Formats: sequence, structure tokens, C-alpha cells
Amino acid sequence: MKYSIIVIGDELLIGQVTDTNSGWIARHLTPWGWDVEWVKVIADDSREIGKAIDEAFAVTDVVLMTGGLGPTKDDITKPTLCRYFGGTLVHDEATARNVEWVVNQRHLTLNDYTRAQAMVPSSCRVIQNQVGTAPIMWFERDGKVLVSMPGVPFETETMMEREVIPQLLRHYNSHEHIAYRTFVVVGIIESLLAMRLDEFERSLPTTMHLAYLPQPGLIRLRLNGIMSDENELQAAMDFYSSRLHEILGGAIVSDDDKPLAQIVGERLRTRGLTLATAESCTGGNIAHQITAIAGCSDYYVGSVVSYDNQIKIRQLGVAADTIAAHGVVSEPVVRQMVEGVCGLLNTDCAVSTSGIAGPGGGTPTKPVGTVWMAAKCGDRVVSQMRHYPGTRDRVITRATTDVLLLLLSLLDGRDVTV
Amino acid sequence: MKYSIIVIGDELLIGQVTDTNSGWIARHLTPWGWDVEWVKVIADDSREIGKAIDEAFAVTDVVLMTGGLGPTKDDITKPTLCRYFGGTLVHDEATARNVEWVVNQRHLTLNDYTRAQAMVPSSCRVIQNQVGTAPIMWFERDGKVLVSMPGVPFETETMMEREVIPQLLRHYNSHEHIAYRTFVVVGIIESLLAMRLDEFERSLPTTMHLAYLPQPGLIRLRLNGIMSDENELQAAMDFYSSRLHEILGGAIVSDDDKPLAQIVGERLRTRGLTLATAESCTGGNIAHQITAIAGCSDYYVGSVVSYDNQIKIRQLGVAADTIAAHGVVSEPVVRQMVEGVCGLLNTDCAVSTSGIAGPGGGTPTKPVGTVWMAAKCGDRVVSQMRHYPGTRDRVITRATTDVLLLLLSLLDGRDVTV
Repeated sequence: MKYSIIVIGDELLIGQVTDTNSGWIARHLTPWGWDVEWVKVIADDSREIGKAIDEAFAVTDVVLMTGGLGPTKDDITKPTLCRYFGGTLVHDEATARNVEWVVNQRHLTLNDYTRAQAMVPSSCRVIQNQVGTAPIMWFERDGKVLVSMPGVPFETETMMEREVIPQLLRHYNSHEHIAYRTFVVVGIIESLLAMRLDEFERSLPTTMHLAYLPQPGLIRLRLNGIMSDENELQAAMDFYSSRLHEILGGAIVSDDDKPLAQIVGERLRTRGLTLATAESCTGGNIAHQITAIAGCSDYYVGSVVSYDNQIKIRQLGVAADTIAAHGVVSEPVVRQMVEGVCGLLNTDCAVSTSGIAGPGGGTPTKPVGTVWMAAKCGDRVVSQMRHYPGTRDRVITRATTDVLLLLLSLLDGRDVTV
Repeated sequence: MKYSIIVIGDELLIGQVTDTNSGWIARHLTPWGWDVEWVKVIADDSREIGKAIDEAFAVTDVVLMTGGLGPTKDDITKPTLCRYFGGTLVHDEATARNVEWVVNQRHLTLNDYTRAQAMVPSSCRVIQNQVGTAPIMWFERDGKVLVSMPGVPFETETMMEREVIPQLLRHYNSHEHIAYRTFVVVGIIESLLAMRLDEFERSLPTTMHLAYLPQPGLIRLRLNGIMSDENELQAAMDFYSSRLHEILGGAIVSDDDKPLAQIVGERLRTRGLTLATAESCTGGNIAHQITAIAGCSDYYVGSVVSYDNQIKIRQLGVAADTIAAHGVVSEPVVRQMVEGVCGLLNTDCAVSTSGIAGPGGGTPTKPVGTVWMAAKCGDRVVSQMRHYPGTRDRVITRATTDVLLLLLSLLDGRDVTV
């Protein structure tokens, strides 16, 4: 199925805000075989909106539209859609009740702007927005569908996932059911993974699909299914999920799409282990990723960011002799750092980094991008060195991911191979 | 001047990459009175590219195009532009030399893909890409202009700034000169700032313009000028920059557009002061922002991320009695944290945070989003409390910004007002 995306918003055309909705929509519809014909970003302007819809319907039967629905913008998009699809703007009681409910949830009070959200074109079917006040509007004409959604990414993403995608798929597939599961895979590069899954992919029924979503250090695999019988779909999803586990074993570190720091954190919580971090070149980013996860205080106690060598020596107990003999970016130093921080902060586990994030500080033997890292869990300590190309920011980000992967491999008892 | 932006790339239409070029271009051309009519994102497809150019020239005289020029994509965009504007693909010696120079700069070797970058339509004028191998191509027909640029944001941004924007402005304004300066302003909200600058803005000649770019906690002011006489332009920029300083005084913390952590860092470096951080709810993000700045080891020594209360007590010397009496999210605790970390890590300055980032942990008197923070410099310690609405991520980000602003106000000897 081909579709177009129209993104409305003056704030996008002056570059104040970057459109992320179209990318999110594409990522989540592509696995169902839905292809974007084009994305057009236009102003909050009635004529422009009408022209863009004409252009879109000339090439695709489905148009997804985001934005132009803020309380202060209501005077443009809704009347335009009303003129386009016919009918008049009417007060919708169910929408009014939903707006009131959403406003109450946020401990705010209704004002004229939010009240006006309950006015909708009589020609649309409203999908109630469960996380915002702007209603989602589904229009149909001559077998074509246009869905108008809010511009706030959180609202569009939530409502696409809960209602719009399932309804679109059902609309175009005569009441079929859909399901998907995401698996996080580590320790194997994409091309090798694709080889190992070649037979598996060929064994999938045509109603199921496997998508690869690689990111630095790990790959998310998304298994999708669409079938008319819900029980049959669930059974198929279970069967092929089990097959994936049989083929990939411990390389699958999560059956859900979640951040690496959360996967690591759940292992620690389950086993009642505590974690500390000792960071040099990553400069607090490991701690930042770990503490971005709600509830991390169950297992995370804190960090010593030892940017200065004196702190490595005085706080973490790294031997000055070791630094003198091997340099501060070295295996013995990162090993002493994990030992030191576990002792200092009294934890079971720790990770450490020491490297040259750049742009300065590189040497012929240790160029910019060289990072030593270690992980400790109980009695076991593992360490590795990496060379990262690219900017300071990239070195910090990659080293953070890799040291969390190193700890995860230790927690899972996997061999350390990347 | 009205213009359209065409963004080419299959990877954008499947949501793998988010287009940031169109926003960047809009932000940098808007101050010159250039308005984007629309942005269209299309596939690497010859027919789609041709159609989009037709649509664009139907409504605007200028079309800026990014993407579709990667070494593996050359077979589509360049021949399409060649057919559209006439001529043939020819080997351009200057471009070949530039490609070779860029490749050498990166310590890489030429291959067939990079060599092919030197083939350009005979109907275009090449603007040599100083930071990449894909040439920038300037086409003209019937008084209309199309500029084709690479998709890599760094390349497009750099070359827009150095060459394309000045050339566009000159082309449409008969050889005028342009200049701009950015000022970072803190401690005043946008509406009050606009009131204070009302007379100043009205006093600007029509050839100059002031833009407000607010972000959480600070506002960037961009002053632009365009004049035919370069000396006159520089004199005017100097004059109005001085006026801004007279009006806003210490509220201008930088005459350059740079991150807050860098502005703070430069103050510390100039005065030979050292800094440590003691973070609880911000969980390492302050350290991460500070160490994202190259050269921070000149003034930054490290951090104690004391997520667990025992670390606040044992490492930072916070009194257990204080925590029992006032709670861990309290003014006495963040004050003891800065004192403690300065002593422990032997620095002149420090910042600290303690708060409830959420979503759990809130109480009626200290709801989620409550953050106490302190800054110390020499003998002076200042502290403040903030309530932030929104998600965990947002609380962490805002608290990080505000505690850096608190330290900056202390370093600058300004009254602490936000």
C-alpha cells in the first residue's frame, strides 16, 4: 500500500522544530509493506493544505497528516478539512468528554482553547486522543482515506500505535489482526546475522516479516505478523519467536525493545546485584544512561568520574606506578579502576573507561579514539580495547554502549566477542 | 524571496534517517527575509525528482536540493539534473582535484566511487565542496536557480554557510555583503527581553535584523546585516553590538554561539579555577555536558555521582542528621554536597543537585520535578530550588542547565535571578 504524509506547521518551515513524525510513521508502517510516496512539509495555510491533499490523492489512496491542530491553529486545518470533505463543524459530545478527561488527568483547567477542540467536521469519524486534547480525525471519500493527527510527537506516536495503525491495516485487509515483537540482539554484525537467519526468513509465511534495525553495537529484530485468525497469529508469533531463540541463543538479550542500560539494569535487579561506575573519557555519560532509566536506584549507587589522574589515584586507588609504566589509557588502569570503585562504593559490579576522546591528546601508538574499558562482576573482571573513528561525541557514545555490552556479557556468562 | 526545498533519499522515506537539512537551511535563510514555500521529501527516483523540480519552479524561483549525491546514488540525481537543465555529464578537472584533496585530507585512498564524483553536468557551475567529495552544483534557467547539495548535514551546513548563502544573497541583491553575530543571553525571559529591546529593534536600519532563538534557560540573539559596502556593514555591526551590550550588560554571557558548558568552562580557564561536580538526580549528565567540550581537562577534574545516600554521607561528607532532618532533597544537603566535593577533589568550584526526577518518588510537599541545586566558588555558595514539569528526561536536562547557569552567575558576580 502506498501513502503520502503531509506535515503542517509554520514552526517547521522556519526550522524552529524538526519533523520527526514522518520518520516515525514510516518506520512503523514499512514492516507492513506500506511505502511512503513522499512527505510534504507545508505552512498553516488553508490553500496550501488543500493543494497538498489534491497532490497526495492524485498519487496515493491514503494520506496521513500531522500538525495544524494546536488550540491556536484550529481556525485553519479543521475548516479546511471540513470544506474538502463536506459537512460542517459540529460540537462532538464524546470528544468534549475526552478533552475534559485529558485536561483533568494533567491537573489543568479547561479554557476556551481546549474547549474548542471538541468542534469537529461532521464528515469525519473521531478517534479519541488518549494522551492529548486534539482529536484524531478519519475522513473517507471515493475509497480514499485521510487521517489527521496532532503535531506533538508523543501524541501521534502513541495514538498511531494504539489505534491508527491497527485501524488502517484492518481497513485495507478486511479485519485482519496484527502483532509484532522486537528482539535485541548483540555480539553479531548485521551481515553475519542475516546469513544465520537466511533459512529462518525463507521459512516465514508470506503473512509474516522480519526487519533488521541496526544501531551502534546492537541490532533490533522486529517480527511482524498479520492474519485473519487471531489465535493462529498468536501461535505463529510464539512458534517463530521460539525458533529465533533456538537459532540465536544468548545473542538475544531482550524480547522487548528497550534501551541497553535498562536491559543491564533488569539483570542486576533480578539477581540483587549493585553497580558502580568509574569513568574517565566517557565523562559521566555511562552514569547518565543508567540513571535515565526510572527505578535505577534499585541497583545503581553512583559513579566516580575521574577525569583528573589524581582522582584515579586518590579516590579509586589506581597505582601511580601503573600509570607511569603503562599510561593512563591502558588495561591495568581500567582494571584497577573497576576494583577501586567497587571497593570505594561497596558494590558487586562496576564498569570503567579510560581513553582519548579527542580531538587533541592522541599519540602514534594511542591515536584519538583509543578507549580501554573494563567490567567487573563478583570475582570476574574482563577488559577490552577499542579504536573508534569520528568525533569526540561519537567516541563517548560508542564507548558507553560497548562497556555496557561488556558488563552484559559478563552478567550473561557469554564469551566476550563483538 | 520565496524558495522551495527538495530533500532526496530513500533512507528518509523509510524513517531510517531524519532530515535536519531543511530545518537548518530555513533557520539560516529566514533572517534574510527568505521564506520556505514547502519542503518535499522524495525517493532516489528520476521521475520523482523531475516532478518535484517542476512543482517547485511553478511556485518559487529558487530551489535548494539536498541528498541523492552519495557515491552509490550518482546514477540517479546527476543524470536527472543533466536532462532537466541540458548538457552532458563531463569530467571536471577542478572537481577531480578537489575530490583528491578531500580524500587525502581524510587519509583515505581514491576509489572508483569517489573518482566518479568528478563527473558533473556541463550545464552547471560547480561550487567545490571543501569538506566532502560530492560537488555542489548551481544551475540557472529562465532566471530561476537550483542548487544541488550533498545529504550529509555537516557538508551541507558548512558549504551553505561558507558559499551557498553568500552567493544566493549576492545573486539576488546585486553584490551585497552579509554579516551576523550571535549573543547568548541569560537571566531574562523572552517577553521581557523583547520589551527591553523594543526601541533597539526599531532603531535598526532596514538592512539589519534581530532574531530571537529561545531554548530552555537561555536565549540566543542573532544580529544580521546586509549592505553593499563591506566597511559600512562592519561598522554598523560593531555599533549595534555595542548598543546591545549597553542595554543588556551582564545578561549577555557570550558573543558567540556556543554551549553553556563551554561558556562556563572558558570563564574557569581564564581565571585558572578548577571545577568538580556532585550529582544526585542529574545522575552524571552535568559531568557529561562539561566533558563534551574538548579541552575541559584544563579546568574539570571529575564528579562524584552520589545516587545512593550512603555515598553522599561517606564520600561527600553530608551529615546523616541533615538528611534525617531535612530530607535528601533539601537546601542543606546540596550545600554540604558542594562543600564536600570541593574538599574531596580539591577544587575551587563545584555544583551539586538533589531532586526527584520521577516518575516515582514524589511526595505532596516534594512532588516529582522538585530539584535543589547549589554552586560554590571560593567562599561563596548559592543554592536554589526548582519545580520542573514533564518527563524524567526533561527534569534531568533542565536541572543540568539551571545549575550551570547558577555557577555562571556566581562566576560573573551577577545576582541570581531567573
